[in-house]
Amino acid sequence: MIRIVEVGPRDGLQNEKSILSTEDKFHFISALTESGLKSIEVTSFVKAPAIPQMADAAELFGRVKSELSDKGISFPCLVPNLKGYETAKTLGVKEIALFTATSDSFTKKNINATVDESFERMKEVAEAARADKIMVRGYISTAFGCPYEGTIDVKKLISVTKRLFELGVYEVSVGDTIGVAIPMQVRSYLRALKSEFPVGKLAMHFHDTRGMALTNIYASLEEGITTFDSSAGGLGGCPYAKGATGNVATEDVWYLLNSQGLDTGIDIAKLAAASSFILEKLGRQTESKFLKAYLNTGKV
Amino acid sequence: MIRIVEVGPRDGLQNEKSILSTEDKFHFISALTESGLKSIEVTSFVKAPAIPQMADAAELFGRVKSELSDKGISFPCLVPNLKGYETAKTLGVKEIALFTATSDSFTKKNINATVDESFERMKEVAEAARADKIMVRGYISTAFGCPYEGTIDVKKLISVTKRLFELGVYEVSVGDTIGVAIPMQVRSYLRALKSEFPVGKLAMHFHDTRGMALTNIYASLEEGITTFDSSAGGLGGCPYAKGATGNVATEDVWYLLNSQGLDTGIDIAKLAAASSFILEKLGRQTESKFLKAYLNTGKV
Repeated sequence: MIRIVEVGPRDGLQNEKSILSTEDKFHFISALTESGLKSIEVTSFVKAPAIPQMADAAELFGRVKSELSDKGISFPCLVPNLKGYETAKTLGVKEIALFTATSDSFTKKNINATVDESFERMKEVAEAARADKIMVRGYISTAFGCPYEGTIDVKKLISVTKRLFELGVYEVSVGDTIGVAIPMQVRSYLRALKSEFPVGKLAMHFHDTRGMALTNIYASLEEGITTFDSSAGGLGGCPYAKGATGNVATEDVWYLLNSQGLDTGIDIAKLAAASSFILEKLGRQTESKFLKAYLNTGKV
Repeated sequence: MIRIVEVGPRDGLQNEKSILSTEDKFHFISALTESGLKSIEVTSFVKAPAIPQMADAAELFGRVKSELSDKGISFPCLVPNLKGYETAKTLGVKEIALFTATSDSFTKKNINATVDESFERMKEVAEAARADKIMVRGYISTAFGCPYEGTIDVKKLISVTKRLFELGVYEVSVGDTIGVAIPMQVRSYLRALKSEFPVGKLAMHFHDTRGMALTNIYASLEEGITTFDSSAGGLGGCPYAKGATGNVATEDVWYLLNSQGLDTGIDIAKLAAASSFILEKLGRQTESKFLKAYLNTGKV
């Protein structure tokens, strides 16, 4: 069994230009819950002007909680700081995600903090979450390469991963958020990570910017990884290569895993229906080749 | 060193709706020869009404021969029957490609012949080519799955491969021409083929219809394959899934191979320039995610 963490409503929509109504976002998440996904990242509790798409975080999470919380699905939310955490906690969020990166130049541009400073912010939140018995997941952006610093030394990745586990996160999502990882690097970095941490506590988060996401996932499977982040319909773009592809599509991941005989618990027809709904609202086509073929032929 | 057989001018353009001028096709092929590619399939000697894009086969090959033949590049041409062979021979073609498939229902729709009948046609041509010292390459369509018969039994694939080698072809291109192969199947079918034939005489030909081409190539590399067919810019479509992706893009294949430290002799900037030229003439965008990112960022 492979666990998919669906990040479309947060990581995906955050990088889409069209601002959707809360109603549409809720309908999308509701449709995703029908597909068999067991973990769906809902939103991000950032300051409203920072990411306009996330301005309705409280309202959206409120609806998810009141209407969808009986389905046994985890609905994590991204939390950038203690203020966001307090809001999330008040609304009844049961799992949060914290994020950092491997390079100061990236975190400075992204959240106006060095990596060390990001750990100071995360530490406050992680301590509060531990006291409140709220689960915490950790994200590392630019795990393999950084748009400003190039290829990242695996020692830096190991160091940041270690510091996240020390904060008490239950899992670290190792993110190639700019889509530069290559299979050979994935295997070698994963071997290094596995020598330090249990493989079951590592998730892989690939972007398909250079078409390498599925092959990187295949390489990760060969190293024993069992959790992957992905975005329904391939929602999201890439801020570092205009017009390029963003998050790997959940449908693509499903097709690869299914073809390898690996169960995800996902009903592909229902997942494709959820993606089709939101893509239509965004007025765009999917970048997922599998989803295109599936929608055209009506079969896998 | 991995050998790439560029099939864009033939397999790619054959599945593009816009009919290009001979001048544009020649310019494209000429640009491809600058990129370091050592084998470029030029055209197909079919009857003119059958495939309008190939109606200028004689004129196009004539120009290639007179202007590009001093570059040490192989310019194979597809030949469907003895009549096409005679034309090709007269024009000075030094390498031809023959084609068949694994299933009667496919060959009947495609070339109005059973698989056995296709071998009768190919036998005449192969015998003539042997006498004329013209090299012959063999293609198998629907090696893994057929749009009419579903998954193809590996025994059928082995049988057709064997019959092609018996005709005297120097290499068999094992084609997933409808893009249904999956990595697990690729590995198991390749293991079966390798138990019968030298791996160095097998080439893999993948279509990216369901986004699986690069992962299938990665799996093929793990089985020791060293020759791949691909199409510059991802030219071509898929007649069995309207609007879906066709041949895997040579740029995608280059990116994967290069990232694995495998040399192809290709200059990616020159290859991308050739693809950009022809895509503009066709009035379409590439389906290659790597090429999109490369053209946007100007770097690998």
